[in-house]
Amino acid sequence: MNVAIIGVGLIGGSLAITLREQKIATRILGVDKDENNLKKAVQLGLIQEGVALEKAVKESDIVFLTVPVDAILHLLPPLLDRVSNQVIVDMGSTKKTILHAVSDHPKRGRLVAAHPMAGTEHSGPEAAIPNLFKGKMMVYVDAMNSDEDAFEAVDAIIEQLEMHTTFMSANEHDLHTAYVSHISHVTSFALALTVLEKEKSQGRIFELAGSGFESTVRLAKSSPDMWTPIFRQNRDNVLEVLQEHIRQLQQIYDVLDREDYDLFYKLIKKSNKIRRILR
Amino acid sequence: MNVAIIGVGLIGGSLAITLREQKIATRILGVDKDENNLKKAVQLGLIQEGVALEKAVKESDIVFLTVPVDAILHLLPPLLDRVSNQVIVDMGSTKKTILHAVSDHPKRGRLVAAHPMAGTEHSGPEAAIPNLFKGKMMVYVDAMNSDEDAFEAVDAIIEQLEMHTTFMSANEHDLHTAYVSHISHVTSFALALTVLEKEKSQGRIFELAGSGFESTVRLAKSSPDMWTPIFRQNRDNVLEVLQEHIRQLQQIYDVLDREDYDLFYKLIKKSNKIRRILR
Repeated sequence: MNVAIIGVGLIGGSLAITLREQKIATRILGVDKDENNLKKAVQLGLIQEGVALEKAVKESDIVFLTVPVDAILHLLPPLLDRVSNQVIVDMGSTKKTILHAVSDHPKRGRLVAAHPMAGTEHSGPEAAIPNLFKGKMMVYVDAMNSDEDAFEAVDAIIEQLEMHTTFMSANEHDLHTAYVSHISHVTSFALALTVLEKEKSQGRIFELAGSGFESTVRLAKSSPDMWTPIFRQNRDNVLEVLQEHIRQLQQIYDVLDREDYDLFYKLIKKSNKIRRILR
Repeated sequence: MNVAIIGVGLIGGSLAITLREQKIATRILGVDKDENNLKKAVQLGLIQEGVALEKAVKESDIVFLTVPVDAILHLLPPLLDRVSNQVIVDMGSTKKTILHAVSDHPKRGRLVAAHPMAGTEHSGPEAAIPNLFKGKMMVYVDAMNSDEDAFEAVDAIIEQLEMHTTFMSANEHDLHTAYVSHISHVTSFALALTVLEKEKSQGRIFELAGSGFESTVRLAKSSPDMWTPIFRQNRDNVLEVLQEHIRQLQQIYDVLDREDYDLFYKLIKKSNKIRRILR
């Protein structure tokens, strides 16, 4: 199978590694607006060749779109224009705006919208790692709008990637990811800003930074090029969740301020219920 | 050397493992108000014997206090009353209130205040693990108030634990830990409460929970018995940091609300500077 990967960064590069290792792809073409990324991706052995978008679509059976969601929004309509029988897989982290933009496209059936719940805080082709997807969740979004053969082709690959799968509507997907992914990034950004602000006057703060701090703040290393468009496209849901989160923090502030330690204890105890969900 | 460990949980138990493995302690006595914990600690081979506090102090050269900070506050004065030439090590996560309570004690010199920047979100003797302390930071607090021989005895052990060390005043310590440890816990508690609240109506949220969510929320599994007293004793600093953190979150909210994506991008970019500090 000939595969094209548009955007040879963390996601696209990691996908390329697995497609090659699993012998799913016989030939992998890469497309990237950054010439340097393309060169690195060839050097790292992620892709065989860096080519122009037109050539990649023409010579591939499946095209994976692994660029930031603003680029997906711009690329997807002209990409579908060029498609005959190929399959396009949109791997973006938001779906509503993107799928709305192509809802009336005559080739909509050739598009499979899928969001792998996998990633790290790093970016670029050097960040690509083997097994990024193994055991993770792939969310198929509005799958009924894809042609059956297109969906089956993608799902066969996802199975070989050893991913779990689930199905959601675009609305569900964007709301749920606001809660379990986008808000985590906002809290990490804000936490980093809080502590960096203080560091200016208190240079020794970071001597004490342990694993707890590291784990709550590591997402603050995430790329603004990737994340700004996600927040733009999922603005309404993120604002709703963020408002609730600020309300919860303000509640903890008030409880501590009035020294109601019984209630403080109960709030921690209640938050412990997250153990049900996390290993 | 005979060692007593008051509080055979995550910290005390992990310490016991290393003291035995490194052959630092020939005999380890354990004290715990919870009989079950003591039994488990003996079964797990963490301690040789569970005894009463009086016996533990009398028969030991060094006594490690690894109980929640409210218990340290209550135990420390009567413990120092019983000390002749032994050394007491307070391993609590807050220092100002505790050290103030014993500042005029005639045996204050036998106390070494030390805070290991190490831990996990788990608790109890079963949570004890080898190498919890290796490579981590030990903060000595107000070390000039300890007798020289007492400090040297503790520092020799800490060196064998292969920990880094630093020195701070109680005020510095409590302010810095508010920034790099206590606030991380507050954000995790609040994030867990936010998402658990929503889950009531949206049961499928957690299908999507990936590693990003897990890392920002894992501290919400922390014990309320341990953490409520920490927040009580470090209330003023935590309120100050929390206020700043809510201000940062509100700023992100406002910027997203008025769709100023240039500034949103800049805020993420600024928070990326945390890379300087984290690996």
